[in-house]
Amino acid sequence: MTKRNECRVNLRHAGGRRRGRAWQREKAGMLDEVKIELITTGSELLLGQVLNSHPGYLSGRLEALGLRLARQTSVPDGKEGITDVVKEAWGRSELVIVTGGLGPTSDDVTREAVAAFLDRKMKFHPEILEKIRGYFAGRGLQAPDMVRVQAMVPEGMEILPNERGTAPGLFWEDRERGKMLAVLPGPPRELGPMFEKWVEPRLRGRAKPGQETRVVRVAGIGESAVQERCEAALRELGVGEIGYCARPGEVDVRLRGAEGEILQAGVGKLRELLGVAVYGEGVETMEEVVVGLARAGKAKLATAESCTGGLVASRITDVPGASEIFLGGWVTYGNEAKVRELGVREESLAKYGAVSGAVAGEMAEGARRRSGAEWAVGVTGIAGPGGGSPGKPVGLVYLAVAGADGVETIEKKLVPERKTFKAMASQAALNLLRVKLLTNPFHKTEV
Amino acid sequence: MTKRNECRVNLRHAGGRRRGRAWQREKAGMLDEVKIELITTGSELLLGQVLNSHPGYLSGRLEALGLRLARQTSVPDGKEGITDVVKEAWGRSELVIVTGGLGPTSDDVTREAVAAFLDRKMKFHPEILEKIRGYFAGRGLQAPDMVRVQAMVPEGMEILPNERGTAPGLFWEDRERGKMLAVLPGPPRELGPMFEKWVEPRLRGRAKPGQETRVVRVAGIGESAVQERCEAALRELGVGEIGYCARPGEVDVRLRGAEGEILQAGVGKLRELLGVAVYGEGVETMEEVVVGLARAGKAKLATAESCTGGLVASRITDVPGASEIFLGGWVTYGNEAKVRELGVREESLAKYGAVSGAVAGEMAEGARRRSGAEWAVGVTGIAGPGGGSPGKPVGLVYLAVAGADGVETIEKKLVPERKTFKAMASQAALNLLRVKLLTNPFHKTEV
Repeated sequence: MTKRNECRVNLRHAGGRRRGRAWQREKAGMLDEVKIELITTGSELLLGQVLNSHPGYLSGRLEALGLRLARQTSVPDGKEGITDVVKEAWGRSELVIVTGGLGPTSDDVTREAVAAFLDRKMKFHPEILEKIRGYFAGRGLQAPDMVRVQAMVPEGMEILPNERGTAPGLFWEDRERGKMLAVLPGPPRELGPMFEKWVEPRLRGRAKPGQETRVVRVAGIGESAVQERCEAALRELGVGEIGYCARPGEVDVRLRGAEGEILQAGVGKLRELLGVAVYGEGVETMEEVVVGLARAGKAKLATAESCTGGLVASRITDVPGASEIFLGGWVTYGNEAKVRELGVREESLAKYGAVSGAVAGEMAEGARRRSGAEWAVGVTGIAGPGGGSPGKPVGLVYLAVAGADGVETIEKKLVPERKTFKAMASQAALNLLRVKLLTNPFHKTEV
Repeated sequence: MTKRNECRVNLRHAGGRRRGRAWQREKAGMLDEVKIELITTGSELLLGQVLNSHPGYLSGRLEALGLRLARQTSVPDGKEGITDVVKEAWGRSELVIVTGGLGPTSDDVTREAVAAFLDRKMKFHPEILEKIRGYFAGRGLQAPDMVRVQAMVPEGMEILPNERGTAPGLFWEDRERGKMLAVLPGPPRELGPMFEKWVEPRLRGRAKPGQETRVVRVAGIGESAVQERCEAALRELGVGEIGYCARPGEVDVRLRGAEGEILQAGVGKLRELLGVAVYGEGVETMEEVVVGLARAGKAKLATAESCTGGLVASRITDVPGASEIFLGGWVTYGNEAKVRELGVREESLAKYGAVSGAVAGEMAEGARRRSGAEWAVGVTGIAGPGGGSPGKPVGLVYLAVAGADGVETIEKKLVPERKTFKAMASQAALNLLRVKLLTNPFHKTEV
């Protein structure tokens, strides 16, 4: 391999296609926005049951900067395949982010693939090896010999320190053509801080004005109902691009392609037309909103779960600071536990069955009484696949919220698939708490 | 647009590159394996915080057939962009799967992108519209006018019925060149059944012999330790390709590229060298293994959680049939709840603190006693970001399992990032239950 200057590398990989694209984009007045592609490497991403969290995380970070991913590609571990796909992306984009394959094991080949793409030799950096050895030593361990490969860097590439692991990131910039290549480690907890500290600062100010995105999050109403109720009014406001994304128990409405003021008016219109069904904006989650409202209102919460099996409590406790407002929860899966722990009445179980509004209400009330919370939620239903009957099919759920003024109960028919059902039922339970907290922000128990 | 025969479409899009690839693969004796690419469409996949579950699901299904995804690409909603990426994939692969963008809203453009790729006109199918109207009517709703677009199909494409939603799938086969295009709806609960019923049967028998994958799942030991202990022995057996994938609290070891017998010997070797740290194979999850062992041993389980906030119970109840063995759980987030609900001693809290082995043990013992379970697990720790101290940093966790013979307690230092911490701590708690159930399969409470 011979060392070549950056400009030539760029010219070779970019070719006519890139110039054509740039011209089209220039004509459309979009030259300022940096076009970004993500390449996630790793055979495991293409071999069963692994969720790839990088596109979601990185696009969320980019969105906050007014930028978006133009494309994301997953390829298996393999030097030629990675080199090919980096080359393709380089021809189309101004920033190519490559993740994964920087570890010490035999299937970690991204360093070499990038060196091949840039046509650079690998260079050993003793200072990186020292740092890796220090990382191991801090845990009372000796670094295995094979970590040495992590100290090899394609010549001329900048080294991005890894504060949470051993593999350094790599960065390469072609200033003349305004192109960048960032190579980041695969583990999300290493990638995140590295991206935020070393890559984000180079992207600030690269968004085209008027290209921000606003996301409004809606619960308790379906995707087509949201569109029927809102789209005409949004179009009238001149919001450029309207997108919908339905997930279990929620719908995101995405506005883009207009100036900030117009987008803001669109958000206001959605709030006006959908009312309390709008639960948040941007990347806010339902549980973050619930915990935020409870903290603001100094209201304590408790949970009593049957079919959701602890998921409501787990989502609440995903939020930092939940301990200030969450007193505790019960997972009363069997009838015995419902009676013993929460004081559900035997008569209610006999008369209405465990999956009933009466039992949901008694569960919520029991949890509230025992914990001393201002608000407690109760959930009982049939998650399936077994346990359904013609009168009470899989997917049926009863939700109740208990407060100082009494208990409110609702019935819902959800999707009869176990995990989707759990997600939807937990979302409905959190939404019930949210609406109570919104409408009674300082509602306290009288003692 | 003019109608053209399938062969010509194929010839135009395939070009020389495809022929070159096929030749290389033929030379390598790999012609039998169908090369598969996945294109997931949807701006939301590239705009913040959405997890794309299709690659994981589809690659898991393909793996069971001995096949794998060669590449996965996400592109935003947009006709030209989708047409381009389908064209590229078609040139490289024998099966292209496209997901999403089949809904009724304005951003659903995949139908038209595929029609443009095939150079076909759109044709209205009244029988599809009738089916969609029936779907709405079954829910007591009237179908909105805009669903009509879901009854438009590019001429000549096969229609795949959707049993769980309104959008039909689309299928196109070029028999002469052995190429297929499957277009499936975005919602996972619609995509899954459609793929399994209509696409999988066409893929059976397309795996090259000796190209299966075996995955061994390991918990309680790190990635580099697994490699150091096993790789040399696996290489000696002639296992072709060895991959490692570390996730919170577990490591997958992936063996591939050798005949079934050799892979089986590799799995045996891993079990021999790693012992009880191997918790499963293939796509088995830790919670499935725990529930399976408890059912086999007729042992009932209970949980007492502080820092994991209900996640252990939620993971157990993710498994169908968990109600047979899971009696219930407590989320005792505050000290009061620990004392009141589980009988944790005030003295222990005062002397050792809430995050201590003593309290974890008393939580587990309390849950076991109150529920009547054979085994109960207790978890207490510091999830962060607040609450840490020099003596008890964020990431510290105590886990205990209580059985008829007493309580066993362990201390672990986990990653100090809240969600990763919860995932790792719940994994460690389930692993503790697993090892107890394995070593005492029929261990029952003496009453």
